[in-house]
Amino acid sequence: MPVQTISWRDGRLFIIDQTLLPVEYLEIELSTVEQVWEAIRSLRVRGAPAIGVCAALGVVVGLSEARPASGKAAIDAARAAADRLATSRPTAVNLFWALDRMRARAATLNGTDTAASVFSALESEALAILDEDRRVCRQIGEAGAPLIAEGAGVLTHCNAGGLATSDYGTALALLFRAHELGRHFEVFADETRPLLQGARLTAWELQQAGIDVTVICDNMAAQVMREGRVQMVVVGADRIAANGDTANKIGTYSVAVLAKAHGIPFYVAAPSSTFDLTLASGADIPIEQRAREEISEGFGRVTVPDGVKVYNPAFDVTPADLIAGIVTEFGVLRPPLHESIATRLRAGN
Amino acid sequence: MPVQTISWRDGRLFIIDQTLLPVEYLEIELSTVEQVWEAIRSLRVRGAPAIGVCAALGVVVGLSEARPASGKAAIDAARAAADRLATSRPTAVNLFWALDRMRARAATLNGTDTAASVFSALESEALAILDEDRRVCRQIGEAGAPLIAEGAGVLTHCNAGGLATSDYGTALALLFRAHELGRHFEVFADETRPLLQGARLTAWELQQAGIDVTVICDNMAAQVMREGRVQMVVVGADRIAANGDTANKIGTYSVAVLAKAHGIPFYVAAPSSTFDLTLASGADIPIEQRAREEISEGFGRVTVPDGVKVYNPAFDVTPADLIAGIVTEFGVLRPPLHESIATRLRAGN
Repeated sequence: MPVQTISWRDGRLFIIDQTLLPVEYLEIELSTVEQVWEAIRSLRVRGAPAIGVCAALGVVVGLSEARPASGKAAIDAARAAADRLATSRPTAVNLFWALDRMRARAATLNGTDTAASVFSALESEALAILDEDRRVCRQIGEAGAPLIAEGAGVLTHCNAGGLATSDYGTALALLFRAHELGRHFEVFADETRPLLQGARLTAWELQQAGIDVTVICDNMAAQVMREGRVQMVVVGADRIAANGDTANKIGTYSVAVLAKAHGIPFYVAAPSSTFDLTLASGADIPIEQRAREEISEGFGRVTVPDGVKVYNPAFDVTPADLIAGIVTEFGVLRPPLHESIATRLRAGN
Repeated sequence: MPVQTISWRDGRLFIIDQTLLPVEYLEIELSTVEQVWEAIRSLRVRGAPAIGVCAALGVVVGLSEARPASGKAAIDAARAAADRLATSRPTAVNLFWALDRMRARAATLNGTDTAASVFSALESEALAILDEDRRVCRQIGEAGAPLIAEGAGVLTHCNAGGLATSDYGTALALLFRAHELGRHFEVFADETRPLLQGARLTAWELQQAGIDVTVICDNMAAQVMREGRVQMVVVGADRIAANGDTANKIGTYSVAVLAKAHGIPFYVAAPSSTFDLTLASGADIPIEQRAREEISEGFGRVTVPDGVKVYNPAFDVTPADLIAGIVTEFGVLRPPLHESIATRLRAGN
């Protein structure tokens, strides 16, 4: 693994500021809830699992920040931090899942606990979320690596790597594991406008790991498919509904349609914490709309005339029928996805 | 029309430097063949018809630059200029078509002509190419405007507007004309990585004309289609083979596949000078590969890690079977395109 995306050292939270990559590799400390909120909001830390882990630790940061005089004050501070962090981004369900776990742990504590013991309990819960994410990434890599054929071309979109999790990635976990197993393959990384996580982050991670990677613009994916250079697609996810419809970075749906048109299997890789079984279909997933400036002057240069409208949805939903399988820590869920999700995921195996 | 993309005034060639738009509107003079070559190569002037017009006038610039002492020296200078300019870019066939016309005109001249009369003859020929391009743009607009339905959403890719021609555009001519006729419609302009001609040029032209335009990233085209906001696609072309296969800016093929998947008709608009009937299919169209830096640091900031490979084909080929029609100065050619091209285009009606 190239990086420690999120670190907790001596009760302090550190992240790699991903907005600076690949030019600068800088670890920053987040010492207030507002700093954590801003880091998530502005994508200094991003990727559904990483957002969840960071938010969970952010609750503990909020507890430290509040310097509570009692156990009750500590629990209140933790709840306030969770409520605030839940407003940072709307689409990735891991955020709410992790915050709900922190709230649930807080609910088990009571007025007889001291501030120190509340801190200790919530710190342990957040670190458990972080540790589980690490383990789950490895399991996803193990489960999905057999899908990477010797000599294959693999296309991925955005970044679902170590930088999107606390360890090894989801979609990229398949590639890291296949590479460790000695498999040879080539990766095409969509640069992923507007924020270029594919070019900046995925390419960087794969390069660090010694994996053969080529960056393309998003609008070239169809062309490399047509050239016969892509045998599979694998992407991450921000929220998966009960029927398998999958929200992921804008452009994922486009890749899925193109893959289908070229007869190329399209896989999603995500931990069970990315599934939202309260939603029947992807139509109910809230899609974050982001600022005009990400497109109109994303890299410091004005590229859209003043006054011209811009549409900037951060995510789209890929319908289940375009998905060949979802790689989870419980193995590869196969179509019909509403059935495999209902049985294997709910059963946890 | 918002601009004079290419102007010839008192024997001097001027262009709008399109690399500076939309931030800066600057007309520059091209006073040597090398300046014309560089302007085409670096996309200061771009768009298949505009490249043809500019190259034709570039031959006349070459003649002036050489200060020939005789008619024969003038003809030699014109030929040398044409040979040099033919190496500027490989895909748009209008370049070769225009240069061949200049060569053919030069071939009608002979040793008894003076340098001044050679200059006059070639200047007239180049200006005829420019005037014909203007007329053809209007005819394309007239022929294609009925395809723009009242209330429609229209998606376009790259720039096939006034900036890509000497006047009114090809794909955008339909929109300009429909707008003049009082039709109401909305345009989605793909920003068109890597050089963002959609965001920088198409959005600017449509805004100047008072047409409702929204810029999206290329990877959002599928999403706006899925939202039901697109009823037709229209794009320009750089070279069309005898069977209707169409080379155009990279990403066009992707849009065509996505349009088909959403049941949206996909149109091409191009003058007859863009057809290359010597090529049976698009497989024979040479595709320009451009520099890594256009992708890796296109915004003035490094967005791809050093040492990571980049693939940057400037064009792709959309197969004829994805094309609902090609709007030419002779009207709309309909499938089967190999037949309509063979009959109506060859007949010139």
